[in-house]
Amino acid sequence: MARKKPWAGRFSASTHPLVEAYTSSIAQDARLAQWDIIGSIAHAKMLGKARLISRADQQALVGGLKHLYKVAGAGRLAMDPSLEDVHMNIERMLVERAGKAGERLHTARSRNDQVALDTRLAAREGLVELCQHLLALQRAMAQVAHKHQGVPMIGRTHLQPAQAVLLSHHLLAYREKFGRDSERVLTALAAADVSPLGAGALAGTTLSTDPHYTAQLLGFDEPASNSVDAVSDRDYIADAAYASTMVLVHLSQLSEEVVLWSTEAFGYIVLPDAFSTGSSIMPQKRNPDVAELTRARAALAVGDLAGFLSLLKGLPLAYNRDLQEDKHALFRTMDFAARAAEVFAEMLPRLRFDPARLKAGFHEGFAGATDLAEFLVGQGVAFREAHATVGRLVRDLEASRKTLRDVRLAQLAKYSPHFTAAALKGLDAKHSAGRRASHGGSSHDSVTRQLDRAGAQITVQLKALRDYERKVQKARSLALK
Amino acid sequence: MARKKPWAGRFSASTHPLVEAYTSSIAQDARLAQWDIIGSIAHAKMLGKARLISRADQQALVGGLKHLYKVAGAGRLAMDPSLEDVHMNIERMLVERAGKAGERLHTARSRNDQVALDTRLAAREGLVELCQHLLALQRAMAQVAHKHQGVPMIGRTHLQPAQAVLLSHHLLAYREKFGRDSERVLTALAAADVSPLGAGALAGTTLSTDPHYTAQLLGFDEPASNSVDAVSDRDYIADAAYASTMVLVHLSQLSEEVVLWSTEAFGYIVLPDAFSTGSSIMPQKRNPDVAELTRARAALAVGDLAGFLSLLKGLPLAYNRDLQEDKHALFRTMDFAARAAEVFAEMLPRLRFDPARLKAGFHEGFAGATDLAEFLVGQGVAFREAHATVGRLVRDLEASRKTLRDVRLAQLAKYSPHFTAAALKGLDAKHSAGRRASHGGSSHDSVTRQLDRAGAQITVQLKALRDYERKVQKARSLALK
Amino acid sequence: MARKKPWAGRFSASTHPLVEAYTSSIAQDARLAQWDIIGSIAHAKMLGKARLISRADQQALVGGLKHLYKVAGAGRLAMDPSLEDVHMNIERMLVERAGKAGERLHTARSRNDQVALDTRLAAREGLVELCQHLLALQRAMAQVAHKHQGVPMIGRTHLQPAQAVLLSHHLLAYREKFGRDSERVLTALAAADVSPLGAGALAGTTLSTDPHYTAQLLGFDEPASNSVDAVSDRDYIADAAYASTMVLVHLSQLSEEVVLWSTEAFGYIVLPDAFSTGSSIMPQKRNPDVAELTRARAALAVGDLAGFLSLLKGLPLAYNRDLQEDKHALFRTMDFAARAAEVFAEMLPRLRFDPARLKAGFHEGFAGATDLAEFLVGQGVAFREAHATVGRLVRDLEASRKTLRDVRLAQLAKYSPHFTAAALKGLDAKHSAGRRASHGGSSHDSVTRQLDRAGAQITVQLKALRDYERKVQKARSLALK
Amino acid sequence: MARKKPWAGRFSASTHPLVEAYTSSIAQDARLAQWDIIGSIAHAKMLGKARLISRADQQALVGGLKHLYKVAGAGRLAMDPSLEDVHMNIERMLVERAGKAGERLHTARSRNDQVALDTRLAAREGLVELCQHLLALQRAMAQVAHKHQGVPMIGRTHLQPAQAVLLSHHLLAYREKFGRDSERVLTALAAADVSPLGAGALAGTTLSTDPHYTAQLLGFDEPASNSVDAVSDRDYIADAAYASTMVLVHLSQLSEEVVLWSTEAFGYIVLPDAFSTGSSIMPQKRNPDVAELTRARAALAVGDLAGFLSLLKGLPLAYNRDLQEDKHALFRTMDFAARAAEVFAEMLPRLRFDPARLKAGFHEGFAGATDLAEFLVGQGVAFREAHATVGRLVRDLEASRKTLRDVRLAQLAKYSPHFTAAALKGLDAKHSAGRRASHGGSSHDSVTRQLDRAGAQITVQLKALRDYERKVQKARSLALK
Repeated sequence: MARKKPWAGRFSASTHPLVEAYTSSIAQDARLAQWDIIGSIAHAKMLGKARLISRADQQALVGGLKHLYKVAGAGRLAMDPSLEDVHMNIERMLVERAGKAGERLHTARSRNDQVALDTRLAAREGLVELCQHLLALQRAMAQVAHKHQGVPMIGRTHLQPAQAVLLSHHLLAYREKFGRDSERVLTALAAADVSPLGAGALAGTTLSTDPHYTAQLLGFDEPASNSVDAVSDRDYIADAAYASTMVLVHLSQLSEEVVLWSTEAFGYIVLPDAFSTGSSIMPQKRNPDVAELTRARAALAVGDLAGFLSLLKGLPLAYNRDLQEDKHALFRTMDFAARAAEVFAEMLPRLRFDPARLKAGFHEGFAGATDLAEFLVGQGVAFREAHATVGRLVRDLEASRKTLRDVRLAQLAKYSPHFTAAALKGLDAKHSAGRRASHGGSSHDSVTRQLDRAGAQITVQLKALRDYERKVQKARSLALK
Repeated sequence: MARKKPWAGRFSASTHPLVEAYTSSIAQDARLAQWDIIGSIAHAKMLGKARLISRADQQALVGGLKHLYKVAGAGRLAMDPSLEDVHMNIERMLVERAGKAGERLHTARSRNDQVALDTRLAAREGLVELCQHLLALQRAMAQVAHKHQGVPMIGRTHLQPAQAVLLSHHLLAYREKFGRDSERVLTALAAADVSPLGAGALAGTTLSTDPHYTAQLLGFDEPASNSVDAVSDRDYIADAAYASTMVLVHLSQLSEEVVLWSTEAFGYIVLPDAFSTGSSIMPQKRNPDVAELTRARAALAVGDLAGFLSLLKGLPLAYNRDLQEDKHALFRTMDFAARAAEVFAEMLPRLRFDPARLKAGFHEGFAGATDLAEFLVGQGVAFREAHATVGRLVRDLEASRKTLRDVRLAQLAKYSPHFTAAALKGLDAKHSAGRRASHGGSSHDSVTRQLDRAGAQITVQLKALRDYERKVQKARSLALK
Repeated sequence: MARKKPWAGRFSASTHPLVEAYTSSIAQDARLAQWDIIGSIAHAKMLGKARLISRADQQALVGGLKHLYKVAGAGRLAMDPSLEDVHMNIERMLVERAGKAGERLHTARSRNDQVALDTRLAAREGLVELCQHLLALQRAMAQVAHKHQGVPMIGRTHLQPAQAVLLSHHLLAYREKFGRDSERVLTALAAADVSPLGAGALAGTTLSTDPHYTAQLLGFDEPASNSVDAVSDRDYIADAAYASTMVLVHLSQLSEEVVLWSTEAFGYIVLPDAFSTGSSIMPQKRNPDVAELTRARAALAVGDLAGFLSLLKGLPLAYNRDLQEDKHALFRTMDFAARAAEVFAEMLPRLRFDPARLKAGFHEGFAGATDLAEFLVGQGVAFREAHATVGRLVRDLEASRKTLRDVRLAQLAKYSPHFTAAALKGLDAKHSAGRRASHGGSSHDSVTRQLDRAGAQITVQLKALRDYERKVQKARSLALK
Repeated sequence: MARKKPWAGRFSASTHPLVEAYTSSIAQDARLAQWDIIGSIAHAKMLGKARLISRADQQALVGGLKHLYKVAGAGRLAMDPSLEDVHMNIERMLVERAGKAGERLHTARSRNDQVALDTRLAAREGLVELCQHLLALQRAMAQVAHKHQGVPMIGRTHLQPAQAVLLSHHLLAYREKFGRDSERVLTALAAADVSPLGAGALAGTTLSTDPHYTAQLLGFDEPASNSVDAVSDRDYIADAAYASTMVLVHLSQLSEEVVLWSTEAFGYIVLPDAFSTGSSIMPQKRNPDVAELTRARAALAVGDLAGFLSLLKGLPLAYNRDLQEDKHALFRTMDFAARAAEVFAEMLPRLRFDPARLKAGFHEGFAGATDLAEFLVGQGVAFREAHATVGRLVRDLEASRKTLRDVRLAQLAKYSPHFTAAALKGLDAKHSAGRRASHGGSSHDSVTRQLDRAGAQITVQLKALRDYERKVQKARSLALK
């Protein structure tokens, strides 16, 4: 039989079982349980400090909550679905353990600021973990780029051969993307760094509470400045979901390449057995499932973000029950992103690149054509004319089923008097990839600069991350010490 | 320790634990377990009939599978995460129980057609359930409309008072929407009504199988005509997600009104206690949580649909592992829709409407203005002139803080000589609401016609639904008899 | 200077210029202009028939509207932004031309039912055009499949070589998808086939109108049954956007393959010059831009669908101005889909397939491994054992850098005594692709059956399309004859 | 007849007209034209400085480009659709004007880095404008809050009366949200603050260019560090679209309230005539169209964001033509947000609030119940007991159709001996709203603190904005001086 709701006082009929099931958030709340308890410990300490409860009650509450924290950690909190949510379940357990003191815990607090707090605490922890994996991912990418310095590959636009680039240069393009992703995660962490506790249902309280104290105990930058905003604000969830989605979008792009590169047609990489899966029917298969699932989860994250923003856009102030469903977008996207970053950080260093395949098609794909055109420009030819000249050369070679490998100076001379022997010298993938010495271009020096830049950026981001790690630890320690 | 993968033969290293966790679909597959077993029973019977396995093996397989079906029904299938998915787990259990015969089950089958089958079976069942609730919802709405015949309310555009309508007429607008929703669900059911079993990994099989027989055993209309399509086609999931999302969109619109109507400002309805929830801090609250959560879930469903279509759009043929993630969009949206339709079908008949509040503001909102303008048109005045005339009247009344209630003929006459006493007769909400006798308008006769139409449409849809119910039952009976 | 609004009678201040710009729908309405005029002709005829206006007024209205139709057709309707929308602009032009009669046109009509009508008429026309292109696309695909009968290719799962299939079989998988797309478009056409004219602002009218007559004149199946639904219902737009999005999703999947296939690494196809574009800098480029843009537009369509459903979900009944923004989702997705289907129908027959490349990698990719395993099953070996046996063979071959091409019977015999010479006979792409004779499998007979099926389905769909073409023509003829 | 493409040299057939139309970006590019010219001026200056072109050629180029800038400003650039895009059109016009020098402009540049540059320049300008409107919006909201200090209203959760708050407090919750929005826009500006010029097609160039110089001329923080990233990175567009969408989400939430508040049922505000629109049929209407359209555009922005991320997630490196479609998400969402912020900043100060209506329902909605419960807590009663006590009181009052207005001390005493006369003192909306003195609560002091905070935050953001304004101006001045 369903237990009496804490708000049952005013109601004359009990909740319909369908409604109980429909409105229950217990399944999604599980992840909040420990944070709910930690938040309550901070709240109890504040109530004691502000003399809104006695010292004895404070001790009973904190003691009971620390016990429940351990129970929750062991996964043994037995939730009663008829009590709606994790908050009410924990309060009930506390009353059972700590007696009358338990009935004082909810003083100057509402589930509206309570759940906003719990979700911020869980978001902060999740984002910290995501950021850790992102830094590991950046390091892994830089390490792989460092290891393969000097290896050329066919750079592509429209997936067609374009110009030779250094493999390291190509990989470091992703490092740049992951560097921006880490920034976005840190921005989301800053957005979550406000304590809503003290906002009550929506208007604060007439009691003489101290929101700065709870904010400080829980490792937050400051308490919320406006209680109506505090209970309705889910921007930090949108920020977290957006940052997570961008991580997945970039990993999905990399996954597209992992899938392509591991085909027999490209053959750029061999996936290690430990990162492939086989087929139930085809004995020969070695499938890039990690990459495929990452693409899929990027798509789901895009959907979760859109769904959540669609939810938000319809809400008047202040709290509405719609907000209960904010956890899908938050947890699923953060987890998808963290798990993906984690597994890629492990997988990347284990990819075996095939240098011969990476540069295959340099001549067949005429990937040196721009080099020839730029040679003419160096000789004073106008670029458009140079482009057209080499275009005719390529068309004629293609028509006679030849490639740039087959070209001799005499032939070049038919197209332009400005060609000299130097035009053909070093017209191979390696030279071509390495000599684009412009800032940001695909040269050895540029790669070296990028590796330095990666190191510097990671150091700065790590420092910022450490601050948040300490804040998470500070809050956790409330239940531990 | 992880068990050996069925495809381990070719691999020289075991799967990385991170990859195992990353690629496992066991959590989402739970719902497929019973359908997986039923599909295997059909497959085993076909293998026996086609003499691809012996009669003894067939019996051993079917017997073992029926046993596992019961175990699954009791929620006691112990899944081993290292076996990747539900299919491999069940096969392993079958081998443990039925011995060597178990190793023959996967003959002429791949997980690609197997999971496509399981998902279609689960989709069919879910859609049937959704359709049942939608028909109940239509009936409930028609019943409420029938019960309140003759009650006028303020119809709104831009949420501003527009013209009086009959409450029944307003409610039956939703019945029309739910009627279309049911059609969409039936369309999705038709899309799911193809058996992919027999498509193998992507190309069919060289063995002499009989896909028509398995299709017939499982209650499908026909086997797939193209194996590459069969393993890659997820249109039916998109159709199911789209149909479910539209259900939720319409229920979200109704929810907007339930939320509004139950405010003290509108006061159109009182929510029964059994369908409201209270507050942890404010003793007076009676909140429309069912409606709020429905709005939120409509938003999530929109996101799930978008995410799933985003997933699909990037996939070359035939099967890609991305498709593993199709279950989120399918199950979550179908379930959200089914649960929402179910709870609204229960809640609607229990709403207490307040007739006085429903028509409040008729005069203050000048909701009879169109009646006056149409009166002038009936007298031969051009509509634009009539509209401008009544517009001036309204402006002057408003300026002197009066309403249409206060108007007398003498005053009307100042605005147009065409006004007669008849213009004011019946200028109240009830008359106004009931006399728009045009087809589809808000008159008593129109409401009666709509109730008849609802009955007829429900009957036709119920008949179509019965066919699918029988098909679900037919497939289930494979494991039961 | 802004003109007086038609509803200015009641207002004491004119619209703020920012608001005028913010609320104007003229840019998006352009496409509705001719349909707005046609709808007004039908409405004027009904008003005359119902004696709500005189015969002379009717003639003046219809004559004036026919004139404006021609002006609109020539792109010379000069819209005044201060008149808000296309409806008010056209009415004003009509009043200027037809005098007082023009002021009677809006009798028993509101912009709410008017715009609902216009949008349905435009949706119907757009969907008819989309369906025409889809049928052409199906025919083109069937024709290409027919032309290349017997050509084998490497079928893929996870983009890895899986089993050989016939190219025609692969292409006909898309025909199946396009066949379902056409069905969805026809379903959307059926959803649009209801006339909202007569619903007025939301409640119908007190005047004795004849909505059946206007519905019939405009080629609609029936008038709306509920006026509140009629002005709020945008399901047909969602249906149209969903159907269009699915078309684009499938063309995006095909585009992924066109992009891959035209790389030098795959080399399956050569894009004709007329369907490629070049580079501004790299003289050698031939880029698959049509495919790339199609992928992109599929993504935008997914977004438009999500945005539109998100818009809908927040709306109480009946009409809300939010609905003005329904045209983005409708027109953009329909147009993207129609243009994409059109250009693919032209491009597909011009692709040059390279048979040698299509089957390259058959041996290296071990794509015959399933054939060997099925051979063993045919000899009575349990499938799991057969799978493991061939798995070991593949692993060993791979380790010694050999392929299935290099295998001799003696070697096979080391893995299983059940292998005979027949196991190796016909172990090439062509035989392998053609002998999966199961229903729906990749055999010559199966392809022939699928071509027949395609022809039959196209015929049925064409018949349904013809009906809607006639309806569009019927409505257009109101302005022409 | 179509002009020869600049890349036609290699092609033997001209582009199919369908493909020309399908791939043209001219319509969307119009907005880029001036920025394209400015980017080319910077590029020409760099080419001259680096001696890659002669001084005379540099002057001819810059002169020609400045002329075209004026032509573009006057809207008189006549684009030839057969030249694909804005870049090629402008180059052609330049060649026509500046002769051979024009053919040198594209030296060491590709359309890939060129369009990336143009889009960043346009994004920067658009974001600056959006940020200007957001600051004006914050100021407007603070001003309205300041003006109405002391006015109480019914604060709501679940749209039900919850507790009284100060209107200013409620409005300042939005100020907090807009403050965060402005931060997000500034973050997006920082993301756009990198110059991709110099990245060429994807790999940089062999010519001795100076990307730092062009970056500096155009007012960018730095040139891109990795050329492959530079041509593929669209994170700044995602950031801009996300920031814009959040602006719209918050304005949509405010719009929900504007729509509600302007109903006759709530009557909290009267919309000024200049910000309302009327009806074509109902003479009495005054509709909140600005708010409704804002809600709708928030939904479309959510869709655009999802569509764009869905586009991105499928792309391998480096440039793919899919990216051409990035402008929809960028321009539409930024414009929707800027226009919405602009019109709300104008509308807000003109809303007439009705103080009597704002607090109506305080007693009927039992909005003082929490005050009573907190009174008991102040007397030492445990909160849960206090909550239950007041819950019973509310239930009994409601059952006897009474409100908190009707309560006397004697009655209170029946529920708890802890009630004293002080409990009822000041139990009205104004006192209740003003005495929640906790930090962030709804008290006069809190409102004052929030106004100070708003001023300080606006000052900081304005300073950051000024930097970007200067950068935009610096780039524009290239074409002007």
